[in-house]
Order: sequence, then structure tokens, then C-alpha cells
Amino acid sequence: MTHDEQAEREEALVQRVVDSFAGAPDARLRQLTQAAVRHLHAFLREVRLTEAEWKQGIDFLTAVGHTTDERRQEFILLSDTLGASMQTITVNNPADGDATEATVFGPFFVEDSPRIEHGGDIAMGAPGQPCWVEGTVRDTAGAPVAGARIEVWEADEDGFYDVQYADGRTTGRAHLFTDDEGRYSFWGITPTPYPIPHDGPVGAMLAATGRSPMRASHLHFMVTAEGLRTLVTHIFVRGDELLASDSVFGVKESLVKDFVEHGADDPTPDGRDLGGRAWSSTRFDVVLGRG
Amino acid sequence: MTHDEQAEREEALVQRVVDSFAGAPDARLRQLTQAAVRHLHAFLREVRLTEAEWKQGIDFLTAVGHTTDERRQEFILLSDTLGASMQTITVNNPADGDATEATVFGPFFVEDSPRIEHGGDIAMGAPGQPCWVEGTVRDTAGAPVAGARIEVWEADEDGFYDVQYADGRTTGRAHLFTDDEGRYSFWGITPTPYPIPHDGPVGAMLAATGRSPMRASHLHFMVTAEGLRTLVTHIFVRGDELLASDSVFGVKESLVKDFVEHGADDPTPDGRDLGGRAWSSTRFDVVLGRG
Repeated sequence: MTHDEQAEREEALVQRVVDSFAGAPDARLRQLTQAAVRHLHAFLREVRLTEAEWKQGIDFLTAVGHTTDERRQEFILLSDTLGASMQTITVNNPADGDATEATVFGPFFVEDSPRIEHGGDIAMGAPGQPCWVEGTVRDTAGAPVAGARIEVWEADEDGFYDVQYADGRTTGRAHLFTDDEGRYSFWGITPTPYPIPHDGPVGAMLAATGRSPMRASHLHFMVTAEGLRTLVTHIFVRGDELLASDSVFGVKESLVKDFVEHGADDPTPDGRDLGGRAWSSTRFDVVLGRG
Repeated sequence: MTHDEQAEREEALVQRVVDSFAGAPDARLRQLTQAAVRHLHAFLREVRLTEAEWKQGIDFLTAVGHTTDERRQEFILLSDTLGASMQTITVNNPADGDATEATVFGPFFVEDSPRIEHGGDIAMGAPGQPCWVEGTVRDTAGAPVAGARIEVWEADEDGFYDVQYADGRTTGRAHLFTDDEGRYSFWGITPTPYPIPHDGPVGAMLAATGRSPMRASHLHFMVTAEGLRTLVTHIFVRGDELLASDSVFGVKESLVKDFVEHGADDPTPDGRDLGGRAWSSTRFDVVLGRG
């Protein structure tokens, strides 16, 4: 058989599979499935995937599936570490004036976080250096957004989110609302670097390919307001040496912020007594795109 | 932002992810991961995947993972129904003279099947019309292959393989060896159509896209012999109306065989008494490619 005949057989198979989806009643689902088939087959044909590699792929996906439960979403980790999450965000969040850039959602957001007032503490006992965070929420015309809901969540200084502990604790997460002038402020903890969960198949993939599981230090935000584009993002810490090799490709220069270090004797912005601990502070002014 | 700037941002992200795998010590793993990233991102960018669709994708893969256990391999079903299994087989089994064509392995093969002698019955109690199968195994030079191991497995007339029952039965599967002249023969049951397991997420995908879960009637073979290419294939039943719409794209014209119907009074090839039942017979001459 010639090379051309082999290519024809392979192309004919792609076409048969694409055609099998031609009767999908929903036009968008038809588009998605047919495109997925074309790209999947293009991959298989380009790399000339062996049957042993196909089996390894099935075993890998099976392991990812079996690692996933209510507390651990290994498919999201896989999507994140392949940059697929970040690409989806990039596709869906084209720049809109000076609207704040989006980044990955990650697997650690939890619904129904505790509500705090301005100046409240999201740490709720999570270990770490206190960090004062303040800023405003505005729209792209510069108008303050009152009543915007700000969800914040972060890992503790040991590198774990509350949901990674088995004791059911709720720490390092909360939500609050902007005031009439669009302002917000809260105490959190200074972000520190941590690895994504890497004791599962995604961690094995990173190890096998010489990649680090470390995420650059960050604090998660989700900001929602009626009629405006929901923003899912992080802020990062200027000077963090992991900024260039973040394991989920989440870093954008515009999201890197100065975190100012303060000694234990520096007065806190709200007069809070930190019991003789050093602290940090940062500012994050959010601009929400049009809905 | 212009269209070009958006495209540049998306392409820059693809390149960052591809570059992150540049240090993979194994060259083949580097090639596979980098190609997977490029094709995955090309899909996301082409279809402009929404964040809600991304979430549906994560949920779908999670459901596939949770449906998979020791007895049910939903990822293989997914690969099969997307034609990925058949494409992998096509890539790896280019024609070699008149070597018998390969088709999908499927999820129902089991190691350590019972051994039978020539003329033995693989049904072992599985319900269905008796079917006499005979043939030879040769190499592409036409020489008989003695001692080739032939694994055969099939669904019963209710459409189920033994492993789909919860009672641990072993029916509808066996292995035997060719004699010195490369011949083999056994009793099985006449293949009947059945749906792939479609009570899980893959079945939901087929239903949502207007596809049938039915497989064309078939009997599985795996033939192995020292120094020759292992053949994984099926034979199909000429006249089966499902030949054109097989849910896993496994049908090849060269694998469609005549199954001759015999009345209860027709003498059987080996004199076996079928207790007054009608039966069928077919012939499948195998040619193994070079190893």
C-alpha cells in the first residue's frame, strides 16, 4: 500500500466519524463534537499513536477519573496544567478597555463562603502572615460599583486550602460587598507558593515531563455585579521567583501587585492589634468589563 | 483590542504551554504532550469554547471516570464511539500484502479464557443459535501457521458478554490453537446485534447527538503467533442492516462474511447433536502480517 492510500484510509475514517454526528439536533453540539473528532484524529495521525500508547492514555484518564471526588477535581487540574483552562478564559475574556484581566478559576472555590464586613478577616485561623487587602471596584467608564460581591479564597502558609484538610474546616475564604463608593477591604494572609496536588496522575505527568507542580503565590478573587462581566482572577506577588513558571499558566503581568512588608510595630490601617506580628499590605483596584 | 491582538494572546499562551514540556527527558513523551497541547488548544480556539461548555466537558469526563470500574471501561467506549480506537488501529496496521484487516479491540476481552480443542464450544451455555466457525491461519507468503493462538469472544443473543452479568460466569469466550496445517474450528453462537452499554455518559452523548448505540453483529478474534503481527479483529455478518452505522466504526468490507443458515435436520460438520436446533456456519481464513 502506498503512503497516499494509507492517508486516504485514515481520512475516510475521520469523515465517517464526523458524518455520524451530522444528525445532532443541536447545532452547537454538532459543531463541538465534529470539531473534537477532527482535532482528536489529527493528533492521533500526526503522532502515529501506538496501541500501547493508546492503552496508556486510557489508563491515564481512568486514573484521573478515579482520583476525582467531591474534594479533588483531577480533570480540572489536568485542564489547568495543559493550559486548557487558561485558553478557555482567554477566548472568553477579550480585553474590554481597562477591564481587569481574568485568570484560572482553579478547583478550590466553594459555594456559600462566610460573609465578612469591611476589614473582616478571611483567614479565620488559617496560619500565615496577616495581609491587608484594599481596593475599589469600578466599571470601564470609571464609575464605582456599589454592592459588588467579592469572593476571595487562598491557601494557608502550609500550601493547603481548607477543603484539602479532612476536618471540614472553613478557613481562608469569605465574601464581602463593596460600599457605596465601590470600596472594599479585608485581612487575609500573605500569599505563599504551593504545589498543586501532585500525588495523583497529573502530578505523575508533570514529574515525567520535568515540570514543576508549583504555583506562583496568589490570592483568588471572583467579583460579580449586576449587568457587568463576572471577573474570575488572582493577584500575584511581585518578586515571586515562580511568576515565570506557574504550573497552570495563570500569571498575567497586569495581575502582579506590590505586597508591602510592614514590621510588627507599624500601625495597621484599621487599628487592629496583630499581637506583635509583622504584616503586609496590597492594593487591588478592579475594573469590571461590560456584561 | 483588535482581532489580531486577541489571536496573538491566544497563540502566545499555546507557545508557553508547549515550551513548558520542552524539558521532558523522554523525546517521545515530549512529542506526544506537545502535540496534544497544540491540538487541544486548536480545538478550544476554533470552537471558541465557552466557560459553561468547558464545565460541561469537565463534568462529562468526570462522569466517564466514575462510570469506569473493573467491569466497565467507559473511556474505551468513548474512544470507540469517537472513532479514536479505530483510527489508532488504522495508523498501526497498514496493509501488508493480503494480511487480514484489524478492527477495534473493544472493552470485553478477558485474560485467561478457557482453552478448548478443535470443534469445542465457546458458548459454554450462553444463549444463542449454534454457529460452526472454521478456517486457517497463514502468513502473507501463504504458509500455514501451526500453533497460532486464537482467542474468540462474543455477546450472547441477549446482547451481553459474560462480564456484563454480575454472577461471575465465563461464557462466550475461549482460546484454541491451530493444528500443524494451520487449521482451527469451533462452535460459537451466531452473532446478533447489540447496543454498546449506553446507560452511562457515552450513551447520553450518543442520544444527544442522534446516534445509535448499536453495534453490527460480530464475533471477536485475536490471533497471535511467534514472529508475526498480532491480529485483533472481528468478523461481521453479511446482510446485517447495521453494517453501515456501526457505533464504533469497526466494519471493514473484507471482514464481512457469509453466515450460512442450516435447518435442524442438516448434519453438522463434526456430527454434533444439537438437540433439534437450527444452526449456522461460516469460514474465516486469517492471514497474519509480518511482525
